[in-house]
Amino acid sequence: MRIALDAMGGDHGAPPNVVGSVIALQTHADLSIVLVGDRAQLEQLFANAGEYPADRVEFVHCTQAVGMNEKPSDALRKKPDNSISRCWQLLAEKSVDGIVSAGNTGAMVAGGLFTRKFLKGVRRPGIATLMPTAKGKCIIMDVGANVFPKANHLLQYGVMGRLYAQTLLGIENPKIGLMNVGEEEGKGHDLVQQTWELFKQGPLKEHFAGNIEGRDIHRGKVDVVITDGFVGNVILKLSQGVFEYTLGLVSHELNAGLGAEKEIALKLLQGIAQKLHYSAVGGAPLLGVDGVCIIAHGSSSERAIAGAINVAVQNVRAKLNEKIIEAIALLPAAPTE
Amino acid sequence: MRIALDAMGGDHGAPPNVVGSVIALQTHADLSIVLVGDRAQLEQLFANAGEYPADRVEFVHCTQAVGMNEKPSDALRKKPDNSISRCWQLLAEKSVDGIVSAGNTGAMVAGGLFTRKFLKGVRRPGIATLMPTAKGKCIIMDVGANVFPKANHLLQYGVMGRLYAQTLLGIENPKIGLMNVGEEEGKGHDLVQQTWELFKQGPLKEHFAGNIEGRDIHRGKVDVVITDGFVGNVILKLSQGVFEYTLGLVSHELNAGLGAEKEIALKLLQGIAQKLHYSAVGGAPLLGVDGVCIIAHGSSSERAIAGAINVAVQNVRAKLNEKIIEAIALLPAAPTE
Repeated sequence: MRIALDAMGGDHGAPPNVVGSVIALQTHADLSIVLVGDRAQLEQLFANAGEYPADRVEFVHCTQAVGMNEKPSDALRKKPDNSISRCWQLLAEKSVDGIVSAGNTGAMVAGGLFTRKFLKGVRRPGIATLMPTAKGKCIIMDVGANVFPKANHLLQYGVMGRLYAQTLLGIENPKIGLMNVGEEEGKGHDLVQQTWELFKQGPLKEHFAGNIEGRDIHRGKVDVVITDGFVGNVILKLSQGVFEYTLGLVSHELNAGLGAEKEIALKLLQGIAQKLHYSAVGGAPLLGVDGVCIIAHGSSSERAIAGAINVAVQNVRAKLNEKIIEAIALLPAAPTE
Repeated sequence: MRIALDAMGGDHGAPPNVVGSVIALQTHADLSIVLVGDRAQLEQLFANAGEYPADRVEFVHCTQAVGMNEKPSDALRKKPDNSISRCWQLLAEKSVDGIVSAGNTGAMVAGGLFTRKFLKGVRRPGIATLMPTAKGKCIIMDVGANVFPKANHLLQYGVMGRLYAQTLLGIENPKIGLMNVGEEEGKGHDLVQQTWELFKQGPLKEHFAGNIEGRDIHRGKVDVVITDGFVGNVILKLSQGVFEYTLGLVSHELNAGLGAEKEIALKLLQGIAQKLHYSAVGGAPLLGVDGVCIIAHGSSSERAIAGAINVAVQNVRAKLNEKIIEAIALLPAAPTE
């Protein structure tokens, strides 16, 4: 299996990408990694990285990198030799099975839209991310690829998110919930009302739990939360924020109120923080593209990069795309947009 | 001061409304409460409520109540003698200074839209709610009155939310943030891009901190978070959900990992949970209507109802509406919708 890594992507540049690659190579004996970026810099970093299976490391040199805060479409146009576009080219020409980047998420998605290598029948790819819940895990889709979708995009996210939950999380019969402002039919704006109809009338109706509200996500009410990329992105980042805020409050109170067992308590809190840190998830797949594309957090550490590569490996092995094509073909014909 | 209370509103019907009224009357010597609902039932409840200042209690009888899950517009049309509409009538004819309801939020908002008694210049009212942050409190507006707003509605929410933060929270120079999927200019869909322009070019530009992301809210990055009612509602309910989830995790770990100080630790957690419970906030104002309208949580307890009445009293005293009218008049002319 060959995975291309945007070796210039992320807040910390090349170093965590190189060390993360070495960790991933040690984990998976059948894995080769193509590091896309400044070859001289990467070779230097590998020279200092200790032992690694050099026969499973390749380089694709490129001269440019998209900045984390650059406007995606501008950056891709102005920097044709950037590492993200080179990754997508490798995927489009099928010389790799998957690509991974901790770089500019918008540029990563835009790179995918530019290649137009979507799976047959898929209108728009979407990012599926895992969220911990009181009952285990759920999937939220989309968390930022498609901030102003059509209802039929969201229906397709239901198909893809459900297959992801079955295949990667091992949930036999995942329930789908539509993010809304209330549970009752007719709640929300036109988009969610139209999407509700598509779920309720279509082939997914038996798996559709209807509208859900913000508080239902972490209670684990459903396995797959469908929403537009704007709301999904807010959900993802807000969850991190509230989680940090709450742990901060608790830590402050325990610190002030406990005696002999204070250290034990604070250590337990650290354990929770680590367990729920984004790096424990690794990376989120952009579903709906022909191949595997994993988007990692911008501030990914070495371990987080290794985790994202690991997610890519799992996704390639799961052969999810074949299942997506089959299931999308069963949906009623939708407007071609 | 006279406040009308939708005495039939809320998950628990009339009882907490009656007891909450008694608590509020004991707190504010200049307060009269008009209880709107089934007079016989209310008088019976007051008869069992112990001592209360009967000269400051009035009843407006009505025969109908909107169910918590009824579709707002249908319910208001089919039940002309419902307690929510009667409250709005009292406000519209200026026989009360404010109204309070723990009933169906959608019906409460729709009741306000039907009267069309908006403040001069205001296009659409919005709900402003308080959110705890690492630095104190912030305001989120709108959290559900206007799920598909125009950019100029959001600009007006900036004006109203900022005045609310100054007047009710005592923040001298509140900073406004626009909820988005990234900080950079040009992020997000058309609505937030247009809204960003209006804030950046207009009279609020010095108070505008630009786009913020989900994780910034609880870090206290800004004092006023402006967003559409769909996203705001998700933020409000998701925050509750993540908070409960995190406390649950912590409680579980401390329970399993601590010894002698376990009870102290769990009591500290309970204290945090109570402090951040929605009932500690009391109620959220629907800003932009002529008068004061406070929306309380559907599952409000007696204390929470008293808290919501208290918020109404504070809002009436603050004379916020005069300031809103002045500030809205300074905005550039916007399309009339």
